[in-house]
Amino acid sequence: VKIITLTTDFGTKDWFVGAVKGVILGIEPQVTVVDISHEIGDGNIQAGAFALAASCRFFPRHSIHMAVVDPGVGSARAGLAVQTEDYVFVGPDNGVLSLALTREKIKVIRRLENERYFLKSVSRTFHGRDIFAPVAAHLCQGVSPLELGSAQEDYVKLDWPQTRQEGDYIAGGIVYVDRFGNALTNIDGVLLSGCLKLESAILVNGKPLCSLKSHYQAVPLGQPVGVIGSTGFLEIAVNGGSAAEALGLKINDPVAVRAGSKTC
Amino acid sequence: VKIITLTTDFGTKDWFVGAVKGVILGIEPQVTVVDISHEIGDGNIQAGAFALAASCRFFPRHSIHMAVVDPGVGSARAGLAVQTEDYVFVGPDNGVLSLALTREKIKVIRRLENERYFLKSVSRTFHGRDIFAPVAAHLCQGVSPLELGSAQEDYVKLDWPQTRQEGDYIAGGIVYVDRFGNALTNIDGVLLSGCLKLESAILVNGKPLCSLKSHYQAVPLGQPVGVIGSTGFLEIAVNGGSAAEALGLKINDPVAVRAGSKTC
Amino acid sequence: VKIITLTTDFGTKDWFVGAVKGVILGIEPQVTVVDISHEIGDGNIQAGAFALAASCRFFPRHSIHMAVVDPGVGSARAGLAVQTEDYVFVGPDNGVLSLALTREKIKVIRRLENERYFLKSVSRTFHGRDIFAPVAAHLCQGVSPLELGSAQEDYVKLDWPQTRQEGDYIAGGIVYVDRFGNALTNIDGVLLSGCLKLESAILVNGKPLCSLKSHYQAVPLGQPVGVIGSTGFLEIAVNGGSAAEALGLKINDPVAVRAGSKTC
Repeated sequence: VKIITLTTDFGTKDWFVGAVKGVILGIEPQVTVVDISHEIGDGNIQAGAFALAASCRFFPRHSIHMAVVDPGVGSARAGLAVQTEDYVFVGPDNGVLSLALTREKIKVIRRLENERYFLKSVSRTFHGRDIFAPVAAHLCQGVSPLELGSAQEDYVKLDWPQTRQEGDYIAGGIVYVDRFGNALTNIDGVLLSGCLKLESAILVNGKPLCSLKSHYQAVPLGQPVGVIGSTGFLEIAVNGGSAAEALGLKINDPVAVRAGSKTC
Repeated sequence: VKIITLTTDFGTKDWFVGAVKGVILGIEPQVTVVDISHEIGDGNIQAGAFALAASCRFFPRHSIHMAVVDPGVGSARAGLAVQTEDYVFVGPDNGVLSLALTREKIKVIRRLENERYFLKSVSRTFHGRDIFAPVAAHLCQGVSPLELGSAQEDYVKLDWPQTRQEGDYIAGGIVYVDRFGNALTNIDGVLLSGCLKLESAILVNGKPLCSLKSHYQAVPLGQPVGVIGSTGFLEIAVNGGSAAEALGLKINDPVAVRAGSKTC
Repeated sequence: VKIITLTTDFGTKDWFVGAVKGVILGIEPQVTVVDISHEIGDGNIQAGAFALAASCRFFPRHSIHMAVVDPGVGSARAGLAVQTEDYVFVGPDNGVLSLALTREKIKVIRRLENERYFLKSVSRTFHGRDIFAPVAAHLCQGVSPLELGSAQEDYVKLDWPQTRQEGDYIAGGIVYVDRFGNALTNIDGVLLSGCLKLESAILVNGKPLCSLKSHYQAVPLGQPVGVIGSTGFLEIAVNGGSAAEALGLKINDPVAVRAGSKTC
């Protein structure tokens, strides 16, 4: 099966996503195109990077992940195709691919330079349609990333709150707010596996807020709770409500977790 | 052809629907996945149930309908697969399947218990991705519902305004407001087939509001009108406007129809 | 490959698009259905016409383009199938197809009259599902447009600001505002090909506003700029912002371009 996923800030009001799919289908008619999101905030590279990283591994091997959140379209930033052991990632070299790539085994990084794999006429404002879509479709057809352009050693990485052990605490930060108002942190649930059996304190902006529980309903309606969310990371939620609204949580707010025992 | 439909409150801003589709395609690559809606109000089981019931019969036989509006995810509510004569329905046993099921011939009801058909790691917060999606994909591949878990006699039904004859009136209520502001009732158009040829009065909250007509434009712009809508039920509309806004109509408002003749 | 594209004002909150796809798949299971937009403003025929025209040519030949923005549903307006050299267009005869058709070589225009290709029961309010979808699916299956109904000579065209040369100026108007707030005009970039090398003035509502540049970032952040957008038409943008909001631009605002030289 041939799959291309799309993660963009193109929105769904206009025809942008439709045109991208038309270009892809014109090159590779047998493909299944799957929308991850087109409602990434306008130019919000960090949110696009998180959405891609949170979903890409649920797709079968050999899927091609195209992510275009590209406020610098038309400027000098490069376009990349990154082949990993399981997938190929296509998008601008501005960090939008970087979170997903930290968990992948990278094999090849190539710049998108070979115009043979672009649309014949490339606009200055819509590389999603004119460069990334046709490149993704040609990759899907079996074109090797090696044919796309020159090699590149590394890729642009995002500033991202570091997860770290600080004395009795595991510290990190809020990196995404989902549509339910849950505040997702970058603290990996694996680090907290011992905490569920102990009393634990979750601090946001330095103040104790709630404990880690196994699910939202483990606290009364309207109360805050920490859970290991479906992405595998700690998230701060409010049972039956929006944690972001009720508690005023924002991207980059610092979060720390302390358990009663050092094994946590 | 293999079809899975999705009706959820996951929204389209985040990666949730993408991850669900990735899981499905990893199990059954030949499937066509069709979105019915992902913008059911957060936790609004009644709206999800109506959207599913209003659309499921327009799909070919053997389609699998997955509906996940699941405020109780992670609690004790069961997950179900319900095989009917024409379809299989998959979702939590909280009423979201129940309106659609009232019109189907039920053959088998099974609880989702066999973890062999789940993702290897099941989160507490995203059963749509971890349980319902892989179960739907396996059903699509030909796994029998009998393999999924133990039998169950019945399923949770929604409270729903009863349609009833009351003297000269046929009475019911508003059950859904669509994005055009049309107020859909649960009064079946079949019961009103005689009314179009006669004078009829439609009462909302006990007050006469409009008559039944064949189409929106049968009244002047801005005027209220009752029509047998595309779902087959009576709906209250305003020609060229939003009935919900203009008339303050709300879910559960009582509606009654009186015709000049008893044949209606 | 069999492709049907959809351009509608049905929205994505309700089940309308899902039902349309169910009907299509029931008739032609091998089809790939692509959404262009379902968020055309309610009844905004002009916006639907622009979205279709801006995207239809990015699809492979023989694609079927179905566009349903249809405030007159249930009234006397006809439904049409228009076969062109490359595509078939299906929709109401109210102008929604007309912009796309001005660039196509028309071969056949037929009215949708043959009920054999409709759903068995046709509602008064949802011809997208009951007439246009099944007709599009049958066309996809190979049914000839000639079987659909009687011939028609012409089709309804939209009022649209004319592009014209006025002395040293090329004049037109704003015809669409996209979700980034860019104001798209109907001034074809081909007419402005000389302007990029010269000083040029772009006037909106009679007042000089900005110059034509090759890309958004050619001006400082927050400044207005004219670019030949991805549709091939002149658009007015603000680098890093919304031109519509920052400058108060609206549909039908007059736009004129003057270059330092007559070659422009």
